[in-house]
Amino acid sequence: MSTPPPLAGGVQGPDALRPLLAAALDALRDGAAARGGPLPRGGPAAVGDRVRTAADPVLPEHGTGPEAALRTLVHALTEGAADPADPLCAAHLHCPPLAVAAAADLAASALNPSMDSWDQAPAASALEALVTRALAAEIHPAADALVTTGGTESNQLALLLAREAAAPRGPLRLLVGENAHHSLIRGAWLLGLPGPVTVPAPAGTLDPAALDEALNELGGPHTTFLVAATAGTTDAGLIDPLDDIADVCAAHRARLHIDAAYGGGLLFSDVRKHLLHGIERAHTVTLDLHKLGWQPAAAGLLVVRDPHDLAALTHRADYLNADDDTDAGLPDLLGRSLRTTRRPDILKIAVTLKALGRTGLGALVDQVCDQARQFAAHIEAHPRFELYDTPALSTVLFRPTDADDTHLAHVRRQLLTDGTAVLGRADLAGRRWLKATLLNPHTRPTDLATLLELVTKASEEVSEEASGEVSEEASGEASGEAKERVNQHATPDLLEGTTPR
Amino acid sequence: MSTPPPLAGGVQGPDALRPLLAAALDALRDGAAARGGPLPRGGPAAVGDRVRTAADPVLPEHGTGPEAALRTLVHALTEGAADPADPLCAAHLHCPPLAVAAAADLAASALNPSMDSWDQAPAASALEALVTRALAAEIHPAADALVTTGGTESNQLALLLAREAAAPRGPLRLLVGENAHHSLIRGAWLLGLPGPVTVPAPAGTLDPAALDEALNELGGPHTTFLVAATAGTTDAGLIDPLDDIADVCAAHRARLHIDAAYGGGLLFSDVRKHLLHGIERAHTVTLDLHKLGWQPAAAGLLVVRDPHDLAALTHRADYLNADDDTDAGLPDLLGRSLRTTRRPDILKIAVTLKALGRTGLGALVDQVCDQARQFAAHIEAHPRFELYDTPALSTVLFRPTDADDTHLAHVRRQLLTDGTAVLGRADLAGRRWLKATLLNPHTRPTDLATLLELVTKASEEVSEEASGEVSEEASGEASGEAKERVNQHATPDLLEGTTPR
Repeated sequence: MSTPPPLAGGVQGPDALRPLLAAALDALRDGAAARGGPLPRGGPAAVGDRVRTAADPVLPEHGTGPEAALRTLVHALTEGAADPADPLCAAHLHCPPLAVAAAADLAASALNPSMDSWDQAPAASALEALVTRALAAEIHPAADALVTTGGTESNQLALLLAREAAAPRGPLRLLVGENAHHSLIRGAWLLGLPGPVTVPAPAGTLDPAALDEALNELGGPHTTFLVAATAGTTDAGLIDPLDDIADVCAAHRARLHIDAAYGGGLLFSDVRKHLLHGIERAHTVTLDLHKLGWQPAAAGLLVVRDPHDLAALTHRADYLNADDDTDAGLPDLLGRSLRTTRRPDILKIAVTLKALGRTGLGALVDQVCDQARQFAAHIEAHPRFELYDTPALSTVLFRPTDADDTHLAHVRRQLLTDGTAVLGRADLAGRRWLKATLLNPHTRPTDLATLLELVTKASEEVSEEASGEVSEEASGEASGEAKERVNQHATPDLLEGTTPR
Repeated sequence: MSTPPPLAGGVQGPDALRPLLAAALDALRDGAAARGGPLPRGGPAAVGDRVRTAADPVLPEHGTGPEAALRTLVHALTEGAADPADPLCAAHLHCPPLAVAAAADLAASALNPSMDSWDQAPAASALEALVTRALAAEIHPAADALVTTGGTESNQLALLLAREAAAPRGPLRLLVGENAHHSLIRGAWLLGLPGPVTVPAPAGTLDPAALDEALNELGGPHTTFLVAATAGTTDAGLIDPLDDIADVCAAHRARLHIDAAYGGGLLFSDVRKHLLHGIERAHTVTLDLHKLGWQPAAAGLLVVRDPHDLAALTHRADYLNADDDTDAGLPDLLGRSLRTTRRPDILKIAVTLKALGRTGLGALVDQVCDQARQFAAHIEAHPRFELYDTPALSTVLFRPTDADDTHLAHVRRQLLTDGTAVLGRADLAGRRWLKATLLNPHTRPTDLATLLELVTKASEEVSEEASGEVSEEASGEASGEAKERVNQHATPDLLEGTTPR
C-alpha cells in the first residue's frame, strides 16, 4: 500500500499535527464568524441541510485527504454550534471550556493512553491517582474519587456502590427529592432497582422533615436506603440543606449521596465554600468539572468517602490484571471504572488546576455567581420582568410579566430559531420560567441587558404571530431562498416568524 | 477580578489556542524524545516518582499560568506514556490514533457541544444522526446506531435493550461463549440480571452445536434469551461462526448480539469483509473505531438493526426535551444515550471517514492484518519460537519454545520494566502465550524482528535471574541514582534485573 496517513503520537506526531491543527483552527475561526451569534439561525431543518451538504457522502469510496475533510466538517460544526463562549448562549449547565483545558485535551487525543491497564497508561494512571485523591480531599481527607463521563455516570456509580453495600441486607431503596436530577431515577432503572421514593421539595429543595417522615413510613432495614440530596439543582441552582439532611440520614442509618455536579465548584471559592457545609458527611459525592470547572466534556468525578466501598468494583480480566501481574506490582486499574478503554480526562483537569490554582478557579466561580446576583437585581428592578428568586449559584430564572407558560415556551423557541439567544426553561412554583445559566466569566452586564432586550423583542414577535397581525412583508428581511428552505423542512411552530439577524 | 483566562470557543478562541497548542506540541515532542522507546523504563515506582515531581502540588494556591502547566504536565504524560505509535508497543487493542482524528477532536474540545439537547449541539447532533446511520448501514440498511464510550458500554447497552425487549415475558438470560469479552459478564451484573450461562469454546470460538445444546437444556421462553457472539476475540482475534450462530438463534427465537469491537473494522476491507458474513442477522452489533478505526478513545458504537428497539431508552427531562418542544420540532436527543452531557465523539470519526474514504480505511485494515500474517510466518519459521495459530485478524500469539507459563509472564514484565516493548498475554489451549496486537500501519518487518530479539534477550535475563547467576555488575549500566530510586519503591519481582536501555 502507499504510505499510511501520519499518526498523532510518537516523535513525528507533533509535526504531523501542526498543519492539521492550523486547518482546524482556521475552520473554527471562519465557522464562528459565519455563524455570527450564539447559535445558527433557522432551526433544526436549516442546520440539518447545511450539515448534510458538508458531510455528504459520509463514507466516500475515496477520501478527500485530511485538510479538506477538517476544513469542511469543522467549519460546518462551528457554524452550526450553540457556542457557550458567546454570552448569549446561557441555557444549560454547558460551560465554555478554557483554552488551556482544550489544549491539554489534545495531548490526550494524540497519545491515546487507555486507563484500563498500567501498560497502556503508565504516567496517565499515576497522574489520575494523584489528582483524584487531591480533589477528593477537598471534601474529606480519607476520600478517593473515580473519574466518570459526567454527573449522570457519577450518580449511577453512587447507586451501584450503595446497591452492593446494601446487598447482604436486601435490595437498595433510593429516596430522592422531587428536585433531584433525572439521572438518579434513570440510574435506578438501569441497575434494576425498585422504583425510587420521591420526597417533596416544595420550596425547590429537599425538606429534611419530609425526608424524616418518608424514612419513618418505609419498612425494611433503613441500612438498605440511599438518600440522594442535591447541591445545585438543574432548574434553579438551589442547594439542599446538606447538614440537616445528613443528620436525618445518620439518625436512620441511611446512606447519603450528594449530587454536587453543579454546586461542587463552590469548593474552590473561599467566599462560598461554606454553602456546601455538610457535604463531607456524604458517603458519595458527584462532582463535575465540565460545569463550574470550565472543562470540555467529559470531566466527571465520584468522590467516595470510604475507599473500601470501591471493592464492589473489583473485576478480573486476565489480559489486563492477571493476579501474578498484580502481585508483581503492576497497578490494577480495572476497578477504577465500569468502562474498559478509557480516555485520560484527568489530564486537562490536572493542567487546569495547576495553571489557575485554587485562587484562579475560585475567582471564576465567584465571577459567574456575582454576575447572576447582578442580573437578578437588574431583572427585579425591571418593570416588564419578574424574577423567580435571588440566585443561590449562577442560575437566574425570570419571565416577562405578561407571558403565560405557553407563550414563554414559544419565546424560547423563537430566540433559538432567530439564532439570537439560547435560554433554558424551568417549571417551578406552579409557573414556567426562562432560565439563564451563567457559566461564562467573560460575560459583561451589557450582554445581559441585551439578553433582556432580545427576550422582549421575541415576546412581541410571538404575540404578533399569535394575533395573526403579521403579514408576509412584516416577517422581515429573510431572503426568498432562506424562507423557501425553512418552509420546506421545518415544523410550523418552531420556525414561525423566523427573522434572520 | 482580573481578566479571566481565555476561552477555547468563540471568534477569539483560535487565537487563544494557538500558543497553547504550540506549547503542548513542544511538550509532546520533547516528552517522546525523553522517553526514547515504546514506554518509560523502571516500572510503576519510577514512573510514579516522575509524575509526582511534575504534578505536585496538584492544586496550588496560585497557578503557574497555562503554558508552564501545559509544558510540565504534557511532558510528564508523554515521557511516561506507553505510546501505540511506537511499533514495539503492541500489547492491547490500543490503537495509535491518526493525526487527522486527533486534530478533529480538538474542535470538539474547543466548541464543547453537548449531545443531550439540540440547543447545545445543533450541527453536532445533525452530524451524529448522519454518520451513525451511514455506519449502521454498513451492517444492515434499516439499522441505526448509538455512540458509546467503547465496546464495554456498547455491550452494556445491548444487554439493556435485550432486557427491556424480554421484560414482558421474563428476566433476560444471557448466554456467552467462554471466549467472550469480560464486559458482557460485568454488564449483566450491572443491570441486575441473573448470572450468564457460559457456553464452551474449545477452539477459541463459540461452538454452534454447544450453543444449541445449551439452549435446549435451558427452561423458560427462549425469547428471553440473548446470545452474545464475538467477531474478534480479545485474546486471539478469532471470529465466531456468525452465520451458523445466527441459525441456532433463529431456530430458538433467541436474540443475537455480536461484539465486533475488534473485528468490525473488516467492514471497510473489500478483501476481508466476507469474514463477517452473518453479522447482518444480529439484533445488535458492537463496533469500536478506537480499535481498527484509528481514533483516539472514545469512539464506540452500538448498531441496532430495528430502531424501534431504541424506544426502551426514551426518557424525559423537561429542561432538555419537554413535550411541547419536541412537538414543535426540536429533536429529542435524550434517548440516544444513557449519558446526559456527552462529547461529540462523532466529529473525529466523520472527519476520518471523509479524509480516508472506504478505500483508505480498508487499506489500513488490510495492512495490519497482512503484517500479522507475515509476522506469524516469521515466527513459525523461527527455531526458538512457537506460534499459536495463523492470525484471523491482527493478533499474533507466540512463545519462546523453552519457556513455561510463569517464565513467560516474567518475560513480559521484564520487557515492561526495561521499557523496551509492550506485549500482552493470553492463556489459551492450556498454555500461556505472549500477545502482539498489531494495530500500527507504519510497523515494518524489521520492527517485528526486533521484537523477537527483545523477547529472546529478556527471556535470557529472566533465566539468569532465576538461576541466580546474575551479579550486581552484570545487571548493566544502571546509574547509581536510578538503581537507588528503583530499590526504594519497586516491588521486587517487577523490577528484577532492570536493565536500562
